[in-house]
Parts: sequence; structure tokens; C-alpha cells
Amino acid sequence: MSVGIVEEKFITFDQDLKLESGRILGPITLAYEIYGTPNADRSNVILVLHAWTGSAHLAGKYTEDDPKPGWWDAVVGPAKLLDTDRYCVICSNVIGSCFGSTGPASVNPKTGKRYNLSFPVITVRDMVRAQKLLIDHLGINRLLAVLGGSMGGMQALEWATQFPDRIASAIVMAATARPSPQAIALNAVARWSIFNDPTWRKGEYRKNPKDGLALARGIGHITFLSDESMWQKFGRRFSARDGLFDFFGQFEVERYLSYNGYNFVDRFDTNSFLYLAKALDLYDAAWGYESVEESFERVEAPVQFFAFSSDWLYPPYQTEEMVKVLGKLGKPVEYHLIPSSYGHDAFLLEHETFAPMVKKFLEGVSKSRE
Amino acid sequence: MSVGIVEEKFITFDQDLKLESGRILGPITLAYEIYGTPNADRSNVILVLHAWTGSAHLAGKYTEDDPKPGWWDAVVGPAKLLDTDRYCVICSNVIGSCFGSTGPASVNPKTGKRYNLSFPVITVRDMVRAQKLLIDHLGINRLLAVLGGSMGGMQALEWATQFPDRIASAIVMAATARPSPQAIALNAVARWSIFNDPTWRKGEYRKNPKDGLALARGIGHITFLSDESMWQKFGRRFSARDGLFDFFGQFEVERYLSYNGYNFVDRFDTNSFLYLAKALDLYDAAWGYESVEESFERVEAPVQFFAFSSDWLYPPYQTEEMVKVLGKLGKPVEYHLIPSSYGHDAFLLEHETFAPMVKKFLEGVSKSRE
Repeated sequence: MSVGIVEEKFITFDQDLKLESGRILGPITLAYEIYGTPNADRSNVILVLHAWTGSAHLAGKYTEDDPKPGWWDAVVGPAKLLDTDRYCVICSNVIGSCFGSTGPASVNPKTGKRYNLSFPVITVRDMVRAQKLLIDHLGINRLLAVLGGSMGGMQALEWATQFPDRIASAIVMAATARPSPQAIALNAVARWSIFNDPTWRKGEYRKNPKDGLALARGIGHITFLSDESMWQKFGRRFSARDGLFDFFGQFEVERYLSYNGYNFVDRFDTNSFLYLAKALDLYDAAWGYESVEESFERVEAPVQFFAFSSDWLYPPYQTEEMVKVLGKLGKPVEYHLIPSSYGHDAFLLEHETFAPMVKKFLEGVSKSRE
Repeated sequence: MSVGIVEEKFITFDQDLKLESGRILGPITLAYEIYGTPNADRSNVILVLHAWTGSAHLAGKYTEDDPKPGWWDAVVGPAKLLDTDRYCVICSNVIGSCFGSTGPASVNPKTGKRYNLSFPVITVRDMVRAQKLLIDHLGINRLLAVLGGSMGGMQALEWATQFPDRIASAIVMAATARPSPQAIALNAVARWSIFNDPTWRKGEYRKNPKDGLALARGIGHITFLSDESMWQKFGRRFSARDGLFDFFGQFEVERYLSYNGYNFVDRFDTNSFLYLAKALDLYDAAWGYESVEESFERVEAPVQFFAFSSDWLYPPYQTEEMVKVLGKLGKPVEYHLIPSSYGHDAFLLEHETFAPMVKKFLEGVSKSRE
């Protein structure tokens, strides 16, 4: 069942945020959505953390004729994995993004102009600090769970190490304690694509620099899929519209990248894309500590990890390193390697596979709090 | 020992070449180099086949103060793996390239202008047909071996299937019977980078469109290295020149891609890059046949294959598929999987590892011809 018609909410905080860079950001607005109802002691609240280009719009529709539901509608709703008859589910758009939270496209109240590149470089830890203001504001003492994939998984890790007493559990999917140089390199060429676009104008564009952003997103799509899923989806099929010997003739996989790349231009801000890419690359669970060990020593809540066999962006070995460290430290940790051909995208697509494990994990956490 | 000072040669053929596309290309010029001396019956000739951005300049220097020797100097020379005291080694620049052979930057004698995009789309098979004209011209009845990595390996495969009676053996490294959609996708975004550069002007540039070509090459470098080699080479080190929170601050791996990308602009023609990328993507050993089996049925010479464990562009499983087919057909085939962290580039770097196996293979072939 669907959560039905939902409403986007906004909150602007009085206090400024001191960022990891030392710079100050404020005032900060966060966009968020709430599905289900908190119980009396607010112990049934789950915070879902979105990935790179996600939003607070997790589930439901804004209007009856809204063509598309939220991005994880399959998972959030009555009788679904995150059962809104039982849990209160919250999702907030991260700072730096372009879906209602403060980001580079926002107007800086101090200047009356868009931030653009005057926006400070932010980290995943900064995003989580901003979320924490929201959780404080909503009067939630302890989240039943924080849960996310990819950049959402990094945020869950930050909750677990930075606010260990504020969460009862964390679920981390398709994430990493620190992206590899290969993952950084792939983001680097995506950035470069945008920098090369003369209409980007160092961030001072009026309209998205479409060719640069589309290409950057096209590169992203390669990393979200896998060799296996590309064989299944496209093989070596050549576009039926093109001749095999046309100079501009395309393979199906090329058309897919181009189609999805240009589609993306209509729905995401280029500077946000760049700031969040940077946050991903800079992410290091050991940030501010001597080592991941020292950082993970702070974890108190049980953590459930999922990795996906064909994910080559944040490959399983990177999750396994984290699981090993937590295990060595004697922390409660659970790990599932899900066989999947979907690549990094699997965390969005394999919900039927991981649902029973997440369900069981959440039930265990709920029970231990009763 | 070095082969010393070498000379680049050129030959222009009277006859035109009928291409796989049905189009006619001619007259064709090939640039080539010869190291060592053919024996009386010309049975000691080895043809080395270069990769995407290679040239005929395999070994030695053009002048005493030439700063760099040929691209595979480590392998070709007296007492080296391809011992020029024993073998006569030839390398020719492929058609479509920009190092002396006919390509898009050549002047079309019929119009008096550069071909640019009027150059026909060519295939690896077309390249090999042009090479065969050279081998005929040099009066070589049967090559002792054809040998190459990556696109060079594809050419070796084409020699083995198209001119089975003209080779006594083939050595195929880091190649594939058909690039995967992932490999195609990575070339697709490289192409797209160039198409996005307004100075490319649909191929009618005066100077290389540098930002587009540099980015395209940067993407290429990601595919030539591996996750493993990037950890070893760069890790997550941040450029010492940049602040971690500078918007344009770079990781070391980014600087490497950028540095190598822009370097490439001075030495390779953009349209050649595009035509050869296309030839790579279109490559299919089964081209013109019902299946790879049917194509490989034509092979007569023993084939030695090398794959490299961390090569994710043309991963070992793709070589293993070829080995399996040849094995099933009862053809003489030998396979070595070389453990290496160098990724696709390993075929250029692991020569000390594979040298003994190649040496033994060549000796076996020489002996059987005596």
C-alpha cells in the first residue's frame, strides 16, 4: 500500500553550522518528509538517508495525478519493509543538494545572491550535523534506525560514530569507509566534463550547462551499473536507427547513457552535483581520527551492512573491511553480501532480496528497546 | 642492447582497399619500421601490432639525441625477447592512425583536402588487410609470428582467421573477441567529451580540441589502470598544492589524469582517436561469421594468449572464452593468466613476466618450421 498523498516540509534553523572546513554556513534550511506517526515515546522513528542525487521525497505522491511516487516508494508504506503503520519514517534532503535544502543554488541571505561557487565545500559529516538539528527539533531522543545506501550509507556511518547515543541501530548499504582512487577518478572526469562546458561559467550559469552535466551523469551511470548488467540490458546491440558504419552511429548502451544524461539536466542542479561529488570523494570514516579503528571505537549501536556482489564503485571488499574492524572491536555487526548483477544500483533494486534481513534486524532492535 | 638508430619507412600502394563498410579507401600509405634482418627464406619475420595510440616506432631512436626510444624498446633488440640478432621484427602504423599511415588527418588526393569526417569508418580487419599489402610487398610468404596487445591482439586474431596460411603463430595479449558494453560505454563517454568541445567543429579543427581530447584520454587512463594499481600509485592522497576544501582542489589521481590527458593533446590527432575508438568498439572476432566458433574454425597456427588478472577493460574471462572455443575446435592453443596489478596496461609493463613463455613459444614455432 502507498503512503498516499504526502507533504514536503521545510525548516530553517536559527543557529549556524560550523563546517568541517572551518567555514560557517547559515541560516540552514532543510527539506524533509515524514511518513507514519511517532509513538508516545518517539521510539519508532527511522531516518532514511538519501544518495547523491536523491531527495527527501521517499514515498507517496504530492498530488493525485503526480506521475511518479517518491524514490523508495517500494520500501516505505503500510505493510512494506519500512511499515508506516508501525514506524515513523523521516527523510531529509542533505545540505548541498537542490531539492529544498540549502545548497549552492540557494540565495545567500547575506548577499541576496545565489551562493554558486561561494558555497563552502561540505562533507558527509556536515550533512549529518544538519540532520541532527532536525532530529533535535522534532524532539526525537533516539532514532530506532538510520538507513541508507551509497552516500546514504556514509551518512549512516557518521550517525553511528558522531552521535552514537542518538541511534539504536544503523543499516549501511553499498557504502564504503572511503572511496577508492578509482571511484575518485571516475568522479574527477565527471567534474572535468562540467568544467569543460563553456556555459558552466565557473558556476555562474542561468541554465544548467547541459552538455557537460549530461556527460557527467553519463559517466556516473557507467559506475552505477555493472559489466554483467550491461551485458544483460544492452549487450553489443547497435541502435536500430543508426548504420553500423555511421561515424555518429551509437550502440544501445551509448544511447542509454546519452538519454539518461540529458534527462538528468532537467532535474538536478550542476553546482549541487559538483559539491556532492566532492563530498563523496572526500568521505573518510576516519576523518578526524587516527584510523577507522579509532573512529569505529565510538560506535555503540548494532550495524547491519549490505554489499552487492557486482558493485564495482564501492566493492564488497570495502564493506568487508569495515565489518572486520567492527568485529575486532567487539561491536555488534552483521553483514550480508547479496549476489546481484545490478552493480551499485542494486541497493535501490534488490529490496525484495534484502527486505527479510532488514526486517529481522529491525525487529531485533525494536525488541531490545521494549 | 638497443637496436640503435632506426629509420621510419613509408610505402604507398597502387591498389585501393575495399573496406568492410563497402567503401573504398585509396591510395593507402603505411608507415613502418624494420629491425633486424630477414634470413634467406624470410622465415624469421615477426610482425608486431600496435595498440590504439601506438605507432610503427617500436624500438630504437631516430637520432642520437632523441629523448625517447620506441614504445616497446624493452622487448625488441639484440638479446631481448624479440631478439633482432635472430628475428626480423616489423611494425607498421595502422590505417586510421596519425603516425604516417593514411588516416582522417591525411590529405585525400581526390579532393586535395584533409579527410576529417569524410574518412570512412574502418575496422580492425581493414587494418590487417592493409598490413597484408605490406607483407606481400616485402615478399614475406609466411610470418613466423604476429604479436600484439589490446587492439594489437585483435589484429593478431584477424591475421589468424583471415590469413591463416600466412602466419606460423599468433600471440594475443590483453585482448578480447568483442569488447563488452562496459568497455564500449567508457569509449562512448570519451567520444562524447570530444563532441562536446566546441573547438572540435565536427572534425574541422585546425588545432586539436584540447579540453575535449584531454578529457577523453583521461577517461582512457582510468580503463588502462586498475583499482589495485591506483591504490598503489595514488591512494587517496590529495595534491600538496591544493587545500582539501578548495572547490578546485584535486586528488593526486585527478592530477595524473589531467596531466596525462593534456600531454596527449600534443601527440595524437583527435579524429584518429575517434576512428580508432570506433574500430575497437566495433571489433568482433565473429564479424562476417555466424559465431566466434565459425570464425575460429579458420585458424591454423598455434595461438598463445595472455590475460592479466587486474585488466578490467578486457577482463581475463573474455580471453578464456576464446581459449575455450579454440580448445573445443582442437586447435593448438596456449593460455597464461598473469597475476598483475597493472590493469590493462600490464601487457606493456609485465614483459619480464611473460618473456620466458613467449620465448619458449617462439622457439617451439621456429623449431617446427626447420
